[in-house]
Amino acid sequence: MKRPAIAADKRTKAGGSPRGTEYMDWHASLWPVAGSPDRISGIELNQICDIADLAREDPDVIKLWIGEGDLPTPDFIREAAVASLAAGQTRYTYSHGVPALRQALDRYHRRHWKVDVGADRFSVTAGGVQAIMQAFQAVLSPGDEVIVPVPAWPNLVEIVRILGGKVVPVNYRTAEQGGFRLDLDDLFAAVTPRTRVIAINSPSNPTGWIMPREQMRQVLDFARSRGIWIVSDEVYAHFTYDGTIAPSFLELAAPTDRLIVTNTFSKNWCMTGWRIGWLIYPQGMSTIFDNLSQYNTTSVATFIQHAAVAALDQGDDFIKALVARSAKGRAIICSALDSLPNVRVFWPEGTFYFFFSVHGMNSAYDVARRILREASVGVAPGSAFGQGGEAYLRVCFAVDPELIQEGANRLVDFLRKVD
Amino acid sequence: MKRPAIAADKRTKAGGSPRGTEYMDWHASLWPVAGSPDRISGIELNQICDIADLAREDPDVIKLWIGEGDLPTPDFIREAAVASLAAGQTRYTYSHGVPALRQALDRYHRRHWKVDVGADRFSVTAGGVQAIMQAFQAVLSPGDEVIVPVPAWPNLVEIVRILGGKVVPVNYRTAEQGGFRLDLDDLFAAVTPRTRVIAINSPSNPTGWIMPREQMRQVLDFARSRGIWIVSDEVYAHFTYDGTIAPSFLELAAPTDRLIVTNTFSKNWCMTGWRIGWLIYPQGMSTIFDNLSQYNTTSVATFIQHAAVAALDQGDDFIKALVARSAKGRAIICSALDSLPNVRVFWPEGTFYFFFSVHGMNSAYDVARRILREASVGVAPGSAFGQGGEAYLRVCFAVDPELIQEGANRLVDFLRKVD
Repeated sequence: MKRPAIAADKRTKAGGSPRGTEYMDWHASLWPVAGSPDRISGIELNQICDIADLAREDPDVIKLWIGEGDLPTPDFIREAAVASLAAGQTRYTYSHGVPALRQALDRYHRRHWKVDVGADRFSVTAGGVQAIMQAFQAVLSPGDEVIVPVPAWPNLVEIVRILGGKVVPVNYRTAEQGGFRLDLDDLFAAVTPRTRVIAINSPSNPTGWIMPREQMRQVLDFARSRGIWIVSDEVYAHFTYDGTIAPSFLELAAPTDRLIVTNTFSKNWCMTGWRIGWLIYPQGMSTIFDNLSQYNTTSVATFIQHAAVAALDQGDDFIKALVARSAKGRAIICSALDSLPNVRVFWPEGTFYFFFSVHGMNSAYDVARRILREASVGVAPGSAFGQGGEAYLRVCFAVDPELIQEGANRLVDFLRKVD
Repeated sequence: MKRPAIAADKRTKAGGSPRGTEYMDWHASLWPVAGSPDRISGIELNQICDIADLAREDPDVIKLWIGEGDLPTPDFIREAAVASLAAGQTRYTYSHGVPALRQALDRYHRRHWKVDVGADRFSVTAGGVQAIMQAFQAVLSPGDEVIVPVPAWPNLVEIVRILGGKVVPVNYRTAEQGGFRLDLDDLFAAVTPRTRVIAINSPSNPTGWIMPREQMRQVLDFARSRGIWIVSDEVYAHFTYDGTIAPSFLELAAPTDRLIVTNTFSKNWCMTGWRIGWLIYPQGMSTIFDNLSQYNTTSVATFIQHAAVAALDQGDDFIKALVARSAKGRAIICSALDSLPNVRVFWPEGTFYFFFSVHGMNSAYDVARRILREASVGVAPGSAFGQGGEAYLRVCFAVDPELIQEGANRLVDFLRKVD
């Protein structure tokens, strides 16, 4: 939903000088909205939230719209938070993360990717989204261009806009058999002298695509040669279905490369409501990210950081079980819809999203609302993910297999009718 | 500490084309830091954190440097968080605050200021600092000017810089008897056609000044006539020493005025480590602030929001006791230093800070470090608060009266010697 930007013009015309009663009357009705710059007042309403708000509390709806599983946070993590609260760890702490957590993050990266980052290159943030916000604050100037393969997570795109940057979308390609892929010629052709960042999200929300290691190497080489930054959002790395962890730019990059990797506790440990994530920055930028933590949120809550240490140090088995459960959900929903003639199905390589297109669907937003109304299933419209998403719907399959089976049944019934 | 900005130039010169080995060698040593825009890499290191980091864990130091009391969060608030965690409230929630919290905030404002804001004008943020970040994101464009009475809380100033705005400082005046005051002629004279915001912090950190209601009215009238925003940071409103709550712009403004009020749970309820605050925006801007919450932090942790409801609904007596304790600390430190011939003492009208100047002191930063080393007292250097603060030191007196007495004794001993 765009808001009118009438008043910005009027204000410019009027300049900085005092004005009379007529102006004051006009002010009363239009000022507030008009008071925001166009890039802010023009932010699209988040279509996922918009549809979810229609039936957030309705128990009859099977909710597959939002990017989170249906499990509460494991007990051992909640207990660590309770213990920290009981110990009175409720006061200010280190801006970019308590030492114990930064060390645990370092161990976690050694264990899973065999990379030696060093605790001093981690910054703890209020979720993955705040990691992205700080990453772009650190490197972007107004007018800079950011290349984003699309469809993409809307938050990534809007953060760039909020900071006055320009998003340059590059469409994933699709092949009937091969699913989504990124053509690097497309990516590199989008580069201009104003390109400041290439933003990669692999495994990709919403498409489920995983960037091959060889492509990562080529992107890194290219970015090095042009002085371009890479912001790599790697939050779904564990959610793959071939038994390996997804490749990370960290495996290829030097500590001084212009690379910022963002991540979150939300997905691996069912901590979406905790708002804690992290980023990894190049050597030599610790003062910058210490400052950015201070001036964005001061820190993440002290007792949440201590709970996060428990998640990292004791949570590997939980991740394994969660991914196995997610694999069941993937098999159920993908095979169910694969049987329909009007649905194009690519089995996602990674993430816990199934992104499918329905033949003849004009408005994903309208269809998502119809599915909610007529089939009591909550799905996210592909249009929420921008250019190239209009013909798609996204469901999250990181839920109870019985629930996803019932959701699949309802979707199949609905989609049969619209055939 | 400024970082060199050499590479920004080199990058511009080299343009967008690939470069050879020589460039790559240079890159390895300079790239990361060079990769940030000057306004980011040039952010001053936070001098308060810098000194605090020297002795954060030293039990012999009396720590009066940071803006927080010495009490843990009250049990009833911690228990509410534990109950929410136990109930599994660990998943995503409404971006700009759970309805129960926004309603509790509305009741709180009715109770304390007799204002009728309405729950739909509140947005819950990751602390007061994130409230300020979102406020400026909502209204500022790069190059816009923000007028800030100084000395001021460094975070306010740095947030404006991070967003590409320009801080226009206006010095408080001082009178030997009258303490700090703001001359509105000074304030209004700083306005230019590029002025976008007047930022007021009353009660003021670090000066302890409180803006009189009549001045608020004049600033509001002036801002209305020019289409200028007011961002009013009112986090210390309860910390006054004449028995009344500090005036709020909310008491004077219409719901459509260009006013954003920011606040925090940190100070009133000893929740500095929880990272939760709020802002109040004009009618008609709820989509903008819903989006900004989504794209900055998605939300504040669900169980922290439920704890905050307990703080608001059951915490009035705690605030009263905390302010009474703070009044004792104020009397102890101010009267102790009042006896010294080389110290100029203004008893603060509000906040829990005592901001005093020492005759002949050249560098507040050096003196603060000397006081830490020689007297084992942690104080904040006035230079941390920018222009006009260089001759001052700040201590926080919201601590145990016995502790502040011991701190006062040590300070008096030290300051006698430097006389």
